[in-house]
Amino acid sequence: MAILVVGHKNPDTDTIASAIAVADLWTKRGMEAKAIAQGELAPESAFVLGKFGLQAPEIVTDATDQKIILVDHSDLNQSLDNLAKGEVLGVVDHHKLGDVTTPNPLEMWVWPVGCTGTVIKAMYDFYGIEVPANIAGILLCAILSDTVMFKSVTCTDADKAAVEALAKIAGVADVNALGMEMFKVKSAVDGAAPSELVFRDYKDFDMSGNKIGIGQLEVVDLSMLDAHKEALQAEIEKVKADGRHSVFLLLTDIMKEGSEMLIASDDATVVQKAFGVSVDGKSVWLDGVMSRKKQVVPNFEKAFSA
Amino acid sequence: MAILVVGHKNPDTDTIASAIAVADLWTKRGMEAKAIAQGELAPESAFVLGKFGLQAPEIVTDATDQKIILVDHSDLNQSLDNLAKGEVLGVVDHHKLGDVTTPNPLEMWVWPVGCTGTVIKAMYDFYGIEVPANIAGILLCAILSDTVMFKSVTCTDADKAAVEALAKIAGVADVNALGMEMFKVKSAVDGAAPSELVFRDYKDFDMSGNKIGIGQLEVVDLSMLDAHKEALQAEIEKVKADGRHSVFLLLTDIMKEGSEMLIASDDATVVQKAFGVSVDGKSVWLDGVMSRKKQVVPNFEKAFSA
Repeated sequence: MAILVVGHKNPDTDTIASAIAVADLWTKRGMEAKAIAQGELAPESAFVLGKFGLQAPEIVTDATDQKIILVDHSDLNQSLDNLAKGEVLGVVDHHKLGDVTTPNPLEMWVWPVGCTGTVIKAMYDFYGIEVPANIAGILLCAILSDTVMFKSVTCTDADKAAVEALAKIAGVADVNALGMEMFKVKSAVDGAAPSELVFRDYKDFDMSGNKIGIGQLEVVDLSMLDAHKEALQAEIEKVKADGRHSVFLLLTDIMKEGSEMLIASDDATVVQKAFGVSVDGKSVWLDGVMSRKKQVVPNFEKAFSA
Repeated sequence: MAILVVGHKNPDTDTIASAIAVADLWTKRGMEAKAIAQGELAPESAFVLGKFGLQAPEIVTDATDQKIILVDHSDLNQSLDNLAKGEVLGVVDHHKLGDVTTPNPLEMWVWPVGCTGTVIKAMYDFYGIEVPANIAGILLCAILSDTVMFKSVTCTDADKAAVEALAKIAGVADVNALGMEMFKVKSAVDGAAPSELVFRDYKDFDMSGNKIGIGQLEVVDLSMLDAHKEALQAEIEKVKADGRHSVFLLLTDIMKEGSEMLIASDDATVVQKAFGVSVDGKSVWLDGVMSRKKQVVPNFEKAFSA
């Protein structure tokens, strides 16, 4: 029975590309593995897989009796159902250490870099296994996506070096053009339902006992969202009403390098505590804030625990 | 302020050697780090550091306001006090994944091998940094100790390969002789109080609601313990009387590759259920049984839950 390699719920390009690459790497190390996903592909990921001729992973949501490798997460609430009824053999990630535990020793590769793809490129090198050209292509796109084309504060020199090496293997001559093409697909908002936009890249967090939802939409120009803001605000109010203390939606302008945050909260003063800005109404501009992981989640965690 | 590198409570040779090596490696990567320990050195570790001319790490037990790298554990109850008031930057380990979590991304190297020292040797290679001869010596001893000179069921090919490479760097011509010398130090029992011997490597377990204590003494020749058995039996009866269903003490002969188990129990038939041997009196020989973690605890857990 093949080991299942799976990323987080609401899969993004890094989660999908990492699952495919780690399944390839484990199989070539002699342990048969297969990429799966916990949900349908987002438009950006579908574009990336199509570009490099790869298929979407099968959707699986339950870990019972399976051998599992987690990529791009180590939090139970972002993982498969019944994770404790399966066996976690490995974790490959670039996030904070979450609450997954195991009864047995395992293999973990976790680095503080901008993208799981960067860790995986180093693992291929470590094990002396060649990265296939199509997998190099999707890992390259994952890094461009997670680092917002190197503009995110999460981006490290290791991410840039990995993109340079992967571009050569994948035969991508103009990395910048590929990135812009990908972000235009990601930015596409017309025709999408408000709930699809809120949940396109959305995660729930437990902060000092409070359930907090944080979504993010990255666009190449914030004005693209002008016609949608009212509906998005109504949608996050609805999500908040379903048992959450707060729901925040980051509308990130990757060219202006900052985010407008829409707020639905029982107590909006946490935004003030977290970012030192005064909040007047239902939204606030956060200059230079592009990373949920490094700039938003830690600040809210501090504000909620204070 | 230097990053503190720390292993588990009740430090053993792997925990001490790994803290010293990881502090060296991080410092050479450009991040100043310093090894610490949560307690005094065991005789084996003192012998190993003395052999290779290294000092015992300073004792520190609180993580408040410190930057921390954990080695050889990822469980909160084995770690520094107030771990959440410090910042965990990394984990290097070879155990199951424990309940430590972090608010920020970190660097983790965790492999399913016999010893953390084996992981650290690979990290030096990965970063292209030479292992200093004295650190190679203590890592080599850590691997010999954790794998009981390659005889433990936890030992892997990676552990054997690491020992071979480290022996060359450290200038150790006869690995076996060094291992025997080290285990003789570990075996030293004369002059030690019975309670010191029982608790030298002792853990309590909850098995289906029963409190079970299991200690282990590893010696190079079981006859070394002949003069002590009566006092050890009396000591475990005393420990049992303090609210436990059973206390077992494994007297492991690393050359004969088996353990004599001393038994203090309300119901010694669990030993029969666990190991399929008939028990006549207060002790039993378990051929091939050397690992509490892999061969003793799981069998008792099954026997108690049956």
